[in-house]
Amino acid sequence: MALKIVALAGGVGGARLVDGLAACLPPENLTVIVNTGDDFEHLGLAISPDLDTVMYTLAGLANPDAGWGRADETWNFLESLGRLGGETWFRLGDRDLAVHVERTRRKRAGETLSEITGAFCRSLGVRVRLLPMTDQPVCTIVVTTEGDLPFQEYFVARGCCPVVRGFRFEAIERARPAPGVLEALRAADAVVLCPSNPFVSLDPILAVPGMRAAVQSRPVVAVSPIVGGRALKGPAGKMFGELVARPGPAAVAAHYAEILRAIVIDRQDQDRAAELSSDSLAVLVSDTVMRSRADRRRLAGEVLGLAELILQSEGTA
Amino acid sequence: MALKIVALAGGVGGARLVDGLAACLPPENLTVIVNTGDDFEHLGLAISPDLDTVMYTLAGLANPDAGWGRADETWNFLESLGRLGGETWFRLGDRDLAVHVERTRRKRAGETLSEITGAFCRSLGVRVRLLPMTDQPVCTIVVTTEGDLPFQEYFVARGCCPVVRGFRFEAIERARPAPGVLEALRAADAVVLCPSNPFVSLDPILAVPGMRAAVQSRPVVAVSPIVGGRALKGPAGKMFGELVARPGPAAVAAHYAEILRAIVIDRQDQDRAAELSSDSLAVLVSDTVMRSRADRRRLAGEVLGLAELILQSEGTA
Repeated sequence: MALKIVALAGGVGGARLVDGLAACLPPENLTVIVNTGDDFEHLGLAISPDLDTVMYTLAGLANPDAGWGRADETWNFLESLGRLGGETWFRLGDRDLAVHVERTRRKRAGETLSEITGAFCRSLGVRVRLLPMTDQPVCTIVVTTEGDLPFQEYFVARGCCPVVRGFRFEAIERARPAPGVLEALRAADAVVLCPSNPFVSLDPILAVPGMRAAVQSRPVVAVSPIVGGRALKGPAGKMFGELVARPGPAAVAAHYAEILRAIVIDRQDQDRAAELSSDSLAVLVSDTVMRSRADRRRLAGEVLGLAELILQSEGTA
Repeated sequence: MALKIVALAGGVGGARLVDGLAACLPPENLTVIVNTGDDFEHLGLAISPDLDTVMYTLAGLANPDAGWGRADETWNFLESLGRLGGETWFRLGDRDLAVHVERTRRKRAGETLSEITGAFCRSLGVRVRLLPMTDQPVCTIVVTTEGDLPFQEYFVARGCCPVVRGFRFEAIERARPAPGVLEALRAADAVVLCPSNPFVSLDPILAVPGMRAAVQSRPVVAVSPIVGGRALKGPAGKMFGELVARPGPAAVAAHYAEILRAIVIDRQDQDRAAELSSDSLAVLVSDTVMRSRADRRRLAGEVLGLAELILQSEGTA
């Protein structure tokens, strides 16, 4: 019988593993809890970058090259906005824009982010359950040597250049797990931490009050987002370097220490597997770079196999 | 010396004559006061259809075939919105959308509609002064045998089908002429009523408190929007038929009776010019259908000539 899985995901790496999991599991067995700490308002529109990346990926609409946005996108809105003197640093494509405009309209009409996300997924034929970590606004602030920066400003406008000293998740104390989140975790056989940025993608999810305890109550398997000492996309490697010292699978495992039961690391980091050895942590070495849809499915299958193994060892313990 | 002109305009016909006037006059000699009674909020965005039609026409960006929207437009936003289950009855193109998103953002930031319109015109190289009739929200309601309908619902969603009984301009009593409107009228040698719908394009402008008296204090020249018994675009002919009986130049002249000094009617209506004969009304018969930019300029020149004639006759009276 297929496992019941809850996956915690941020942007592109997370979206790809989730797509692999969706290919391996019946849709009712997979719930994805997505980071909303990067959500922000831009041009008066409610933008949810990670939710959209996961949704577009599952709907088969994601840009296969960039870590965001849609395939077959056009940029006439942005060009026209630029001519009017509007802000164009955050790139909104013509097709993508419909999601932000409609999400904003529905929010103003009183719908919650999880209701809107559910409606969008139904319209786009996404059958896996996609949930924001919370329906309340939370804002990830990157504390840098050049001051505190909201995530998108650090990430897009400043190109991740400022040196990071830490993070703050504003208003997290008032956030509650979105409806269905705790129920899904209670019903899950295992939790998968996708290869997303630990600091700005998965930590905000885990910081929602009640979330960490609920995650910790299940066997947790992570896929390291650090491969060969750096992140495939985004600033996770740079952040580890600035905050912890040496980016690598051991740093990732240490980051999730209290909750982690097993980790998948890349073959490039095989010689560093020894750093991870511990009685309580299972380590699988594999190819974690997901270039094709087949890669996603294969890696997801290995993650599920690892979860199965942990469950069996628990059953026989 | 070139005349100082204030033109009152609604949508496409008005925009075309304004474009002709702009080609005949130095930009500082032309102020255009545009209807905002059709303005509405759609998808949470502030839409100003007539302001945009005039602005796009003067900027050389208007769709040459439709009476609205931009040339070289794409529709990926709308297609994507439809797939999400959003409302697509009001057609918003990708390029056009930038104006609505940026206008909405600026309005929320506290800018007035006339400030925003001025900024857009500067960005798009429109040197003629374009002013909304008012910065306060006014809503044209079409009273029909099927109930009261906001203009866009009557016009776009219902295709002008319901039989019209009258009009209401909601909140007009709280509207004030936009900054610069009364000053421009005071300084004008003549006022031009463009060939726009009298009921839903020019009447809202004239209904702004203080506007009619200011217009009436100057010589007023109209171009009839009714040609051969019908409007070239839009429901003006149908409205005349439902409200007044026979649509024609006499009905137009009667509509503006108190303020009108001269009218340009189309050659197709030459045999009905006699209905207009009056000592106090000058009538010019010409070709009023503006197919080309040359047509616009020629008709504008004739309108200016007619205004000149009235001014001279006043001077020698």
